[in-house]
Amino acid sequence: MGNHAIKEVSVRRYRGSDAGDVPDILAVEEPLEIRLEYGPEDKRVVKNLSVTMRTPGADEDLAAGFLFTEGIVHRASDIAGIRGMENIVIVALGPELPVDLQKLERHFYTTSSCGVCGKTSIDAVKNVVNCSFSDKSERPDIRPEVIYGLPDTLRREQATFEATGGLHASALFSREGRLLAIREDVGRHNALDKLIGHYLRQDRVPLSDYILLLSGRASFELIQKAAMAGIRVVCAVGAPSSLAVETARAFGIALVGFLRDNRFNVYCGTVGD
Amino acid sequence: MGNHAIKEVSVRRYRGSDAGDVPDILAVEEPLEIRLEYGPEDKRVVKNLSVTMRTPGADEDLAAGFLFTEGIVHRASDIAGIRGMENIVIVALGPELPVDLQKLERHFYTTSSCGVCGKTSIDAVKNVVNCSFSDKSERPDIRPEVIYGLPDTLRREQATFEATGGLHASALFSREGRLLAIREDVGRHNALDKLIGHYLRQDRVPLSDYILLLSGRASFELIQKAAMAGIRVVCAVGAPSSLAVETARAFGIALVGFLRDNRFNVYCGTVGD
Repeated sequence: MGNHAIKEVSVRRYRGSDAGDVPDILAVEEPLEIRLEYGPEDKRVVKNLSVTMRTPGADEDLAAGFLFTEGIVHRASDIAGIRGMENIVIVALGPELPVDLQKLERHFYTTSSCGVCGKTSIDAVKNVVNCSFSDKSERPDIRPEVIYGLPDTLRREQATFEATGGLHASALFSREGRLLAIREDVGRHNALDKLIGHYLRQDRVPLSDYILLLSGRASFELIQKAAMAGIRVVCAVGAPSSLAVETARAFGIALVGFLRDNRFNVYCGTVGD
Repeated sequence: MGNHAIKEVSVRRYRGSDAGDVPDILAVEEPLEIRLEYGPEDKRVVKNLSVTMRTPGADEDLAAGFLFTEGIVHRASDIAGIRGMENIVIVALGPELPVDLQKLERHFYTTSSCGVCGKTSIDAVKNVVNCSFSDKSERPDIRPEVIYGLPDTLRREQATFEATGGLHASALFSREGRLLAIREDVGRHNALDKLIGHYLRQDRVPLSDYILLLSGRASFELIQKAAMAGIRVVCAVGAPSSLAVETARAFGIALVGFLRDNRFNVYCGTVGD
């Protein structure tokens, strides 16, 4: 990530009875508009797809990852090109690629098409995920010692951005605990889309051999994105939600939570056995 | 919040070389669909407005707060009734109330109507906020000792939900530091909408005399909602983003961040002077 990800400001710092002006660093938050260009060559259409509040940097990966985890594109070759300016990214699809406008709307209504309850919302994700890949690979066995070590590795690599205290991270590790890639953002879903988009653009999904580490809590949305990318082991430093656990269980994902201080909880699936 | 907010599960807990099955408590996350009923009495229309992943409880407040912070309703009397079932809430507006469909779309496109950059996105919020109230009241002076004490008060009251580690809180305090109301949710924007909705339904906005405490980070979206509710002092336990600071400055909100362990930073505005 470049310099656009952080911003220096002056703050008035209070410590007990002392107060003084000091420099501080903020995580940058700015809107990114994702536009989709699609259709046959003589009838190209450009559609505004989404606006997300994100930290600038890796915008192309973010857009690609978003389109993939929403089920609009399935492989690198579905994307003919990505161009951007300032806070807008335009993703051009191949002229042959069919575009399902209902799936586009899924972003805004997430689960409304499915009756609005936890169970059916999982079913809706399952329908999309089953179209690509899932349940086709063995889940890698991970030793507990490897899991214990993940947060320290993340923290060492996140050092620059710890200064802001305002960035969520998504990181991919090998099953031996080697850090492969890390992406950060003010929005936790954006950090994960950036990570997945990076691998998608290299045609390296599904990511079924790897461990995903989330720097914070695990929500439904993050597990849904992990499932779309074929990830089978997700570890979160924070707490999972009820629907995150149910979704992980439905997709055969091993979900680890509260991973800190040489402790963790396994909410579904097994590790180290 | 009732029992629907938490869920008991069994987890496998690892601590160093020990592992064992223990009970644990999760924060519940489920989709809520908000529908709007509006129009003259002989031509009522029901429109699906939004689906948000939320923790069940105070759904009516959440829906009312969401409609208010999106600029659709402005006072309690704009809402003729709220009815709900399971994960759906239908808000019926008064038959006379004009509904601006463009504002409805603002929810999905947040800032796209305004050129997609931080500055103009603040302008878009300003246009909405100026229609109601803001800059009309003096900002209350808050003593640093009051600010230091807020997180401890929050923590004491949040005890039940600390068990899950998965809930964000928004709390309203008097300028003397007395806790007035607290709302919790897996989504930080929902916690704030629940809090604001609670006061809106009693016709007690603007909340210009009070302090808002956020249990986590301060993003643009949260400051935007605070501005809509006329809140003039916002304190966050976590870090603010760049756009949160710019938005607070634009609305004359005093923004305190990193409020913990007898320390805090003032990012804009002044306190205690």
